[in-house]
Amino acid sequence: MASIFGKNLKISIFGQSHSDGIGVVIDGLPAGRKIDFESLQFFLSRRSPGRNDFSSQRSEPDEPEFLSGLIDDMTCGAPICAIIRNTDVRPEDYYEISEIPRPGHADFTARVKFGGYNDLRGGGHLSGRLTAPLCVAGGICLQLLEQAGIEIGAHIADIAGIADELFDPVKVSSEELCAVKRAEFPTISAECGEVMLEAVWSAKNDGDSLGGVIECAAIGIPAGFGDPIFDGVENRISSVVFAIPAVCGIEFGNGFVSALLRGSANNDAMYMDGGDVKALSNNHGGVLGGITSGMPLIFRVAIKPTPSIAIEQDSVRFSTPFGLSGENTKLSITGRHDPCIVPRAVPCVEAAAAIAVLDMILPGT
Amino acid sequence: MASIFGKNLKISIFGQSHSDGIGVVIDGLPAGRKIDFESLQFFLSRRSPGRNDFSSQRSEPDEPEFLSGLIDDMTCGAPICAIIRNTDVRPEDYYEISEIPRPGHADFTARVKFGGYNDLRGGGHLSGRLTAPLCVAGGICLQLLEQAGIEIGAHIADIAGIADELFDPVKVSSEELCAVKRAEFPTISAECGEVMLEAVWSAKNDGDSLGGVIECAAIGIPAGFGDPIFDGVENRISSVVFAIPAVCGIEFGNGFVSALLRGSANNDAMYMDGGDVKALSNNHGGVLGGITSGMPLIFRVAIKPTPSIAIEQDSVRFSTPFGLSGENTKLSITGRHDPCIVPRAVPCVEAAAAIAVLDMILPGT
Amino acid sequence: MASIFGKNLKISIFGQSHSDGIGVVIDGLPAGRKIDFESLQFFLSRRSPGRNDFSSQRSEPDEPEFLSGLIDDMTCGAPICAIIRNTDVRPEDYYEISEIPRPGHADFTARVKFGGYNDLRGGGHLSGRLTAPLCVAGGICLQLLEQAGIEIGAHIADIAGIADELFDPVKVSSEELCAVKRAEFPTISAECGEVMLEAVWSAKNDGDSLGGVIECAAIGIPAGFGDPIFDGVENRISSVVFAIPAVCGIEFGNGFVSALLRGSANNDAMYMDGGDVKALSNNHGGVLGGITSGMPLIFRVAIKPTPSIAIEQDSVRFSTPFGLSGENTKLSITGRHDPCIVPRAVPCVEAAAAIAVLDMILPGT
Amino acid sequence: MASIFGKNLKISIFGQSHSDGIGVVIDGLPAGRKIDFESLQFFLSRRSPGRNDFSSQRSEPDEPEFLSGLIDDMTCGAPICAIIRNTDVRPEDYYEISEIPRPGHADFTARVKFGGYNDLRGGGHLSGRLTAPLCVAGGICLQLLEQAGIEIGAHIADIAGIADELFDPVKVSSEELCAVKRAEFPTISAECGEVMLEAVWSAKNDGDSLGGVIECAAIGIPAGFGDPIFDGVENRISSVVFAIPAVCGIEFGNGFVSALLRGSANNDAMYMDGGDVKALSNNHGGVLGGITSGMPLIFRVAIKPTPSIAIEQDSVRFSTPFGLSGENTKLSITGRHDPCIVPRAVPCVEAAAAIAVLDMILPGT
Repeated sequence: MASIFGKNLKISIFGQSHSDGIGVVIDGLPAGRKIDFESLQFFLSRRSPGRNDFSSQRSEPDEPEFLSGLIDDMTCGAPICAIIRNTDVRPEDYYEISEIPRPGHADFTARVKFGGYNDLRGGGHLSGRLTAPLCVAGGICLQLLEQAGIEIGAHIADIAGIADELFDPVKVSSEELCAVKRAEFPTISAECGEVMLEAVWSAKNDGDSLGGVIECAAIGIPAGFGDPIFDGVENRISSVVFAIPAVCGIEFGNGFVSALLRGSANNDAMYMDGGDVKALSNNHGGVLGGITSGMPLIFRVAIKPTPSIAIEQDSVRFSTPFGLSGENTKLSITGRHDPCIVPRAVPCVEAAAAIAVLDMILPGT
Repeated sequence: MASIFGKNLKISIFGQSHSDGIGVVIDGLPAGRKIDFESLQFFLSRRSPGRNDFSSQRSEPDEPEFLSGLIDDMTCGAPICAIIRNTDVRPEDYYEISEIPRPGHADFTARVKFGGYNDLRGGGHLSGRLTAPLCVAGGICLQLLEQAGIEIGAHIADIAGIADELFDPVKVSSEELCAVKRAEFPTISAECGEVMLEAVWSAKNDGDSLGGVIECAAIGIPAGFGDPIFDGVENRISSVVFAIPAVCGIEFGNGFVSALLRGSANNDAMYMDGGDVKALSNNHGGVLGGITSGMPLIFRVAIKPTPSIAIEQDSVRFSTPFGLSGENTKLSITGRHDPCIVPRAVPCVEAAAAIAVLDMILPGT
Repeated sequence: MASIFGKNLKISIFGQSHSDGIGVVIDGLPAGRKIDFESLQFFLSRRSPGRNDFSSQRSEPDEPEFLSGLIDDMTCGAPICAIIRNTDVRPEDYYEISEIPRPGHADFTARVKFGGYNDLRGGGHLSGRLTAPLCVAGGICLQLLEQAGIEIGAHIADIAGIADELFDPVKVSSEELCAVKRAEFPTISAECGEVMLEAVWSAKNDGDSLGGVIECAAIGIPAGFGDPIFDGVENRISSVVFAIPAVCGIEFGNGFVSALLRGSANNDAMYMDGGDVKALSNNHGGVLGGITSGMPLIFRVAIKPTPSIAIEQDSVRFSTPFGLSGENTKLSITGRHDPCIVPRAVPCVEAAAAIAVLDMILPGT
Repeated sequence: MASIFGKNLKISIFGQSHSDGIGVVIDGLPAGRKIDFESLQFFLSRRSPGRNDFSSQRSEPDEPEFLSGLIDDMTCGAPICAIIRNTDVRPEDYYEISEIPRPGHADFTARVKFGGYNDLRGGGHLSGRLTAPLCVAGGICLQLLEQAGIEIGAHIADIAGIADELFDPVKVSSEELCAVKRAEFPTISAECGEVMLEAVWSAKNDGDSLGGVIECAAIGIPAGFGDPIFDGVENRISSVVFAIPAVCGIEFGNGFVSALLRGSANNDAMYMDGGDVKALSNNHGGVLGGITSGMPLIFRVAIKPTPSIAIEQDSVRFSTPFGLSGENTKLSITGRHDPCIVPRAVPCVEAAAAIAVLDMILPGT
């Protein structure tokens, strides 16, 4: 495992889906910064399961306890450790997967990697549950970024081909980011969100699941940040974003669409706006040569459909706890699972972006 | 700048487009491995400019000199340093850009980052020329991977909407990888390649440029490699791939397409194939939970159209060497540039994949 | 702060002397290794305060709670998080030091670094109390090393000029290491230990404190480990050892004594011992060129006298919580402090060595 | 091998004693800093062999060629690569050591580590020759530090028990540092230096060698730098200093002497000096809790006697190029070697300190 990220800011995530606790250590935050815990808790609630019927019915309050690093809600320069106790644990749901790896999950690959000694319950350390501590860290980073005039927000751009409006890559505003962050179902177009929800019900009724695309914008990052060749903006953000299970793609600015365009259409004309250099369009998504341009940072991530489905699937049944020999079998997954993880992944993408951006703009300690 | 990548294997890239030399230090290779320099030179020639008329007419032999790390063509455990002299330098082509940032390039962002002290000639350290030392490192990694039974190959999947066949994600073979690596224009379908080339000529005649998509496959990686949460296969590969200028997106397996599918269509059924666990399909692209599954590793990257175009563009002219004040102006770029960088980026993508994969499978030293 | 160490094994330490909890995350341990918690607890008790009257009377059971990373006392490949609640907290003892920095402590330097926002109670994150989680990590590493045939033990080589015998650098045995690790006062010569203890009482009665030297030996490390130039054995071990507050020097093998010798006296003759290459003497302390030689690894660390003393000292009293202006004052430190930290530092040195050695011999994950 | 150091500043050293070239890549320097090459060359000449008859008679001009990273002698933000060609190579001197490991050298340990594939000529990558690129990097860092008001200088504190005066740890001045840096034989007391030189001749005449102690001081570092727990001042400096072959110990401030003192004698009283907090004495060597105190940073390193001696020694002769079987033999080393490496190690220690300090005070890039 390599559950630590960062250069200036170090994020160390620990825990398993059904261990006594999960949590995060955040090292490298500047001292003397106020944390607003109410705001943090609201952010965490956007990711929490059990809030509504399109998410897993596992009920976890996800209220972190802070063991260190804070005095009177203020960072003190020492590492912050936050822990979350796992409470609503039903390991019996996972009894079978000690024997039958779930298609689309890491059960098989982790078994090979750890020789069968890994925690099989609910995906163990590789569970989506570990995005809770990622969001604790990201939620704190978001607050420090806001104190520096940087705001980050994300919305569901697509579920099963139902496409929301996209952010205006030039004019995306603080108000728009706030709006999607306050929305119960984070789309720009509420109508579109309703159609998406219908598709989610429909898939759920079929014992099936859906994937989607999330678009994230960060505004207020000054030009000049990012450290190419290997620590450019895209390298860093993708390093954290791929820590979110189910992410299978990322694109910046025009991304894969730019492959269809000519240079004259994809380049962004530059002009003087008073004393500032600006771009008329933002096909580059706020990053050129791995360095921020001062325009909004825009990226999109692909989320695969939840692999846990009730529909019967082909898999294998291992004959011993540790080996790889077995025989073919069928599997139907009956636990509590999100028919579509995309809505709950939205704050995770914001958290990942916040961690990567704060790490990038912090002076090294 | 942060021009060093890797955990077990460290790749340190140096040089500017028009500095005396460019090169790479490769630290952490095991001792006692034979390097085939003829094969390495062929690999490098696939990236070199001036080979044909769809690439830049800058003529660089790109023959690295090895200063250290090898005895009788064999690694000795000490870091390898390879340098390439820049020979065909025409800095007068870049005279204007000290004053006028090129849209779509990093001229402006680097000026902000380095306060105007950066090397402006040809993009300096941020030039695509720096993919030459990336390919030296990657070419050596490819050979060590081959010695371990792992092969990597890439092809042009799309240029301007003209789509090549894709690799069969289950059956892609050594022969197919070799075929695209030997082809002068690396497509699976030769006919398709010809149509792409026509589109490139057409864009060139219009003073314009094209982008595209590259697909890469790695076969022979055993199951169980990759270190989630933050050093999973996708995190690592994207960290290196985004070091290639012009890359603006990456997706693994089904990638963005999986966002359109239901879980029942996207999951890959598992079965016993003799004593081995295999998947019937490979929508997961050879990686589950950040860990290799033993199936071919498949990913695609989006390449934006070359920003350097002859067509006139809007930009600004800075009034002093270091500040950011200026006035609006027009710019037409007249140097020697690839109308489509995609063909030459193909070996760069292979190199990036090889570096990431070797770093991942090497035992830590 | 930079409270994370390691390349293959990552140790992330958090907490402050009087925060709700302190602890450690250990990432990168191989899966399937049994942890003996009774043995771990005995190891931790050697460092705990309040055990006898030459140590601080702060009474902390130092029993870690393990939140993650273990199943049935077996590592599962996921990061281990262990937390220790701070119980016997008397912050009123530290009231004055918010205003008066203690000579020899980091109160002043941390105030400058963190602008006065740091946790002042008992030294905060820079307290010796943070060696408790270091010992949790080190104690686990010691067990994994023992499973690999490597044993590490340390003893008090000197307190205030009273010198214990040293380990025989060639013949030091498992029995000798066990003996000092079981001893209540860890010296080779029990008589010498008694004289040391008298010196400690005497200093304590005078309101003063003593320092000393600790010698550590590791046996069973095969030849060939260590990664020069910058990750050689000495670089790695000193990186961890200097994490122990009060350490102010380290030497390997003959160390500073070798500066007095001629090469003919300091070099160690080599010979064939059956099929093995061995050295007749071990002035090199088991490491040549940063790489282990197969001989016992021997190093010594200097521990400065406890800075907290009852004798009145000159210091300054800051006039505001955050600035650096103030006036001269006197200070007498009345809290519960070790008159000599050396005995309790012995297991810390073993822990530091174990962490560095395990990180070095682990294959990279 | 792990030949890369640093967090904000990355130093990557390559080359072997008799490879075509050796060199260094320096990544992370701020842009726009002038390098004085005359001053750099003088610094390098202090380390160069062949300057006088107490150093190796190998004659190497050690004039680096800079391939990248500089424009008009000014850093441009891109990595600097400097290479030095090896010219005066006499590999026949090393013929025998392919078979007979030299006591006190890394011949045996490297053979084990690299399975016999390592470069045996002159110690290969583990040779003291690799301190030449270390000094190129360190010499550049020294200049950037001077631009920031920080000066570093070192002198020979002891050779074979002949002790020079030590720096006054409170009052050490720029003039004193300059004086020892200009001296041909770097001692504070010229008389003492002459006695040392006589001891060196005497050892040389006997076919033997001497070790010693080097003391280093850095003045002008503001209080508040250093990142405990694991990246404190001592951790960082020792990480680089142990990259110098032959270093076998390091101590800060009072170091091992503090082990003999009581706290009341070792603590440094604090007082207000105008608006500044100062210490009356500097037994802490300018670092408390891993963080600089604003007082001069003082440390000493032990250098073992040169292992290469003409006096006959016992060793083994391997019977095959790669295995470890062999028979006992005698060895007398006849190449060109320093009878005492200490004088040439003085600038290396300054270089190591400069690299560690600049890495510590640089904002992260």
